[in-house]
Amino acid sequence: MTELSGFFITFEGTDGCGKTTQIKLLENILKEKGYDVVCVREPGGTTIGEKVRQIIIDRDNSLMTPQTEALLYAACRAQLVSEVIIPALRDGKIVISDRFLDSNIVYQGLARGLGEDEILSINQRATVGLAPDITFFLKLSVEGSIKRKSNFKELDRLESEDFNFHQRVYDGYVYLSRKNSDRIITIDAEKAPELIHEEILDILKGIMKDRGL
Amino acid sequence: MTELSGFFITFEGTDGCGKTTQIKLLENILKEKGYDVVCVREPGGTTIGEKVRQIIIDRDNSLMTPQTEALLYAACRAQLVSEVIIPALRDGKIVISDRFLDSNIVYQGLARGLGEDEILSINQRATVGLAPDITFFLKLSVEGSIKRKSNFKELDRLESEDFNFHQRVYDGYVYLSRKNSDRIITIDAEKAPELIHEEILDILKGIMKDRGL
Repeated sequence: MTELSGFFITFEGTDGCGKTTQIKLLENILKEKGYDVVCVREPGGTTIGEKVRQIIIDRDNSLMTPQTEALLYAACRAQLVSEVIIPALRDGKIVISDRFLDSNIVYQGLARGLGEDEILSINQRATVGLAPDITFFLKLSVEGSIKRKSNFKELDRLESEDFNFHQRVYDGYVYLSRKNSDRIITIDAEKAPELIHEEILDILKGIMKDRGL
Repeated sequence: MTELSGFFITFEGTDGCGKTTQIKLLENILKEKGYDVVCVREPGGTTIGEKVRQIIIDRDNSLMTPQTEALLYAACRAQLVSEVIIPALRDGKIVISDRFLDSNIVYQGLARGLGEDEILSINQRATVGLAPDITFFLKLSVEGSIKRKSNFKELDRLESEDFNFHQRVYDGYVYLSRKNSDRIITIDAEKAPELIHEEILDILKGIMKDRGL
């Protein structure tokens, strides 16, 4: 995707790992520095994708099969990539996404057992070959994640899965971050949000400087 | 899928070809004869699938990409096959589906240009290898289809596509029925509904007798 002059950052991690907070902090500082920033989230990020998101997270849809779930995520992604991400990157903007294909590989491929290859196959055309320039994996233990989630008012369908599922998600992220160590940066999410923010900024400064951003 | 003792019938064709009428007539006669019949439709047929269907046909979603559309159809199908069709066929029931994978191949693969292989790849796991025992393609010319549709009150997003698109759909069905001539039976849909019904019944009698149904 050499014709894309922008920069594509994704955030990954288990529920409660602090993605939303970090994305907000990063968006603010980048905008202050004059960058054009577009923030999106998966599943969702487009009108069509947000409607599909409602189906995915609805607790009433407990009969949803792993295949259906994986295909709905891929549908959201196809729309998001085509309608928002590619046009923004073409315009030289910085795109920050709260989750991307890695989430799908980890949650549906590894934790639900569909397999990594199956998810990649489904998503081949959905992503039109687009991969993030850098991914921050906010690593938080399952115990830490559950503790933070207990502060949430109500859990959605995916958030209310059992402990073993969340352990498989955690293990999946660790596996994936080792496999793609050139792209996925692991950040200790147990630390204070300000410290994490500083760490992310330091890493980005180096990479974006190299890219002339 | 040798463990499935039921019989899987699908109906295909362009809008207005008379699928709904024929399915109703067939369902009634089979039930009269004492068969256990389950009728479903695509996209939809399950609680989750019907919600996805609303997104697919909503005219407000005009920005939907062909990839997104194909993935949403596949998501509906995955849910329908797993939740309804396979269990019914396992119980020895007759399943009649208003559209199935062939529609996806024709509409998204051939008419929208994603390609037949792309659709088959996306659907590989969604259908878990399930194919109809027999498919009736109700062949109606594009002119005939448009004429019948003009009697409908309001057209949905897919029904309101232009003439060229409907011609590609028609050509796609003709191509597919020739390629799969062992499974897809072409029926002249310009004929009177009662005559079409008789023709379908005659064909089914022979096949189902061979299957001990």
